[in-house]
Amino acid sequence: MREGLIESLAEETGSKILLAVMDGLGDITVPELEGMTPLEAARTPNLDRMAAEGALGQHVPIAHGVTPGSGPAHLALFGYDPVSSCVGRGVLAALGIGFDLQQGDLAARINFCTIDEDGVVTDRRAGRISTEKCRELVGLLQDIEVEGAEVFVRPVKEHRACVVFRGEGLDDRLADTDPGLVGRPPRDVEAGAPEAEDTASTVRSFIERAGEILSGLQPANFLLLRGFAVHEPFPSFEDRFSLRAGAAALYPMYRGVSALAGMDLLECSTLEEEVEAARKAASEGYTFVFLHHKPTDSSGEDGNAAAKVSAVEGFDAVVPDIVRAGFDVICVTGDHSTPCPMKLHSWHPVPLLVHGGPQRTGFSDAFSERQAMTGALGTFPADEIMGLLLGSAGKLRKYGA
Amino acid sequence: MREGLIESLAEETGSKILLAVMDGLGDITVPELEGMTPLEAARTPNLDRMAAEGALGQHVPIAHGVTPGSGPAHLALFGYDPVSSCVGRGVLAALGIGFDLQQGDLAARINFCTIDEDGVVTDRRAGRISTEKCRELVGLLQDIEVEGAEVFVRPVKEHRACVVFRGEGLDDRLADTDPGLVGRPPRDVEAGAPEAEDTASTVRSFIERAGEILSGLQPANFLLLRGFAVHEPFPSFEDRFSLRAGAAALYPMYRGVSALAGMDLLECSTLEEEVEAARKAASEGYTFVFLHHKPTDSSGEDGNAAAKVSAVEGFDAVVPDIVRAGFDVICVTGDHSTPCPMKLHSWHPVPLLVHGGPQRTGFSDAFSERQAMTGALGTFPADEIMGLLLGSAGKLRKYGA
Repeated sequence: MREGLIESLAEETGSKILLAVMDGLGDITVPELEGMTPLEAARTPNLDRMAAEGALGQHVPIAHGVTPGSGPAHLALFGYDPVSSCVGRGVLAALGIGFDLQQGDLAARINFCTIDEDGVVTDRRAGRISTEKCRELVGLLQDIEVEGAEVFVRPVKEHRACVVFRGEGLDDRLADTDPGLVGRPPRDVEAGAPEAEDTASTVRSFIERAGEILSGLQPANFLLLRGFAVHEPFPSFEDRFSLRAGAAALYPMYRGVSALAGMDLLECSTLEEEVEAARKAASEGYTFVFLHHKPTDSSGEDGNAAAKVSAVEGFDAVVPDIVRAGFDVICVTGDHSTPCPMKLHSWHPVPLLVHGGPQRTGFSDAFSERQAMTGALGTFPADEIMGLLLGSAGKLRKYGA
Repeated sequence: MREGLIESLAEETGSKILLAVMDGLGDITVPELEGMTPLEAARTPNLDRMAAEGALGQHVPIAHGVTPGSGPAHLALFGYDPVSSCVGRGVLAALGIGFDLQQGDLAARINFCTIDEDGVVTDRRAGRISTEKCRELVGLLQDIEVEGAEVFVRPVKEHRACVVFRGEGLDDRLADTDPGLVGRPPRDVEAGAPEAEDTASTVRSFIERAGEILSGLQPANFLLLRGFAVHEPFPSFEDRFSLRAGAAALYPMYRGVSALAGMDLLECSTLEEEVEAARKAASEGYTFVFLHHKPTDSSGEDGNAAAKVSAVEGFDAVVPDIVRAGFDVICVTGDHSTPCPMKLHSWHPVPLLVHGGPQRTGFSDAFSERQAMTGALGTFPADEIMGLLLGSAGKLRKYGA
């Protein structure tokens, strides 16, 4: 990526871009699918029509051989250098629930857990308590006061919550307190640098007070903190690309990374509602919408090829509505590959489809890894996709005379 | 290449990687091969099986349009930025014969040559004297002492030797003394910067003393120096990638560049012995072996397409032994292209085959430029290959959460 180039050329226009991400889309050949990938095996008449009318290629999320987490993979799709723009999970969790994080805030993820009378963790998720129960527990922690910072506790989902400390000079070089395994006590909030000692005591005080309050409850009688991260705001989509951007995503993680890029979080709770939210946003002056589809990744992580085929077909079913939603350029891709035979994220290049704008069409008739690897767009780094979409939508001035 | 990323993710595991390089492998279509390339024309049942079981792509050694020398081309394959990591031939020559070069040493290549009574060079290679004769001449130069540096002279092969100066503040901004053509006298050791003047006089003294000693002998009665280079050690494969690395290469140049990367030089003197050395290394705890095959390059430089076909087939014949040698991931590629019709190194992308690990297989059935250019791996810079191989071998942690 040539730093600052796209930003220097981007201009505000009325054209609209949709970036639709099937999470973990890329795969490898699967024996039970007769040597096809799930994307090849899926019946996708609508995506195939888009492929015929558009152009294919494949992107490399971070670098060849490097398996990305969802955070950096999405930052790359959004045109941020995924290495220099690394961000901690605590920040994504807080932003993902719409918390108005300020520069310098220290955020961490909370898991409510169960400990026994010796203080040993017996369930790291407290039996996956309900979201309602989570809200109730968070309510009990609202009034905790500690020296050195203001504290905000917010529910997320089931046993998950998050905490934000607001104060001067907070430092995120702190170790997770989650021991990672049951049968061990929670870890201490260890400072990874002398400058982080004060923050460590602040966090320790919070955990002590919370422990006192939760003590005696069941099953959630303690909490584990992880993913400490101080918030440093990113330059927004609006500042960088002159785009008014919205995000239609169901999971906090993806809402968080969208918020980090300055996107507005659109209301939705199903794929159909995501598409409707995108359509509405386009009609209301948004010029960019990110739409996220999770089941392709979950089924890949489960190693369930048939479920991944269904997840792709489920997305294909809403493609006609996506095409009619008023966008000039539509990109369909994944953030990374999650091959079913691996049951993990992987480093494999990810198929990419760009529809709309003056594409070099006529070289593909189906959306698949096989056609993407020989597609008109070639193979290129994920953080160059935004430039391609802006250019396709006529939003980049000519460079030089 | 994202600087430092791969290093930050690499972890030590027991999996083993083989990087097999057919030097100058890439080619262009050759009329006398009915419009095929030598790699296409060669009968390579074993490589073709690897292609079917693995994934293909092509790499760009330095940059599109840039023709590499063997040194930078190999450094790129080894994951070093070939531009910021440029190294002089003198250093490679000294390392290639196993000389224990120290930081700050100034190394240069020696050609024994013939001069006439007017001091004009009549044969730049002294009739390609035998290696034995070379050793004998080097023996005569052992006791030369000069002001400003300790001197080491070592034989290489035939008319080639090398010299190392060890002292304080040596500077390699010195011009070659080889006039490049017969009929001219050797050039002066010209300093390219005022700071290199002292080093230039040290080297001049050496040449004068050597000239006195060789004077009157035939055919080698003088010497030419070139490729002056001060040694700056590189971060090693072990430090960078947590790999224990060995090199099976027959030519000093390639042994030198391997030594520069901190690889141990394995004993071997034929291709079959290289394969056996690789097998032995894998069984003795090495986790990376570089294996070099030269004849593909030599035949390309001779413009002899039939010989290049044979050179490829010669390599294919040892592939079954390579596959059985105990490596988890095997990469077969070239360092650059040496097209027969050009009789020179060139800038063309180089076919690449990766076998083993969770590759996206099923998209190729032969190893050729034609299939490599549409392969699953795409086209990418050579210095990203190491990341791909480490990732394929399960040696890279996930990047970000």
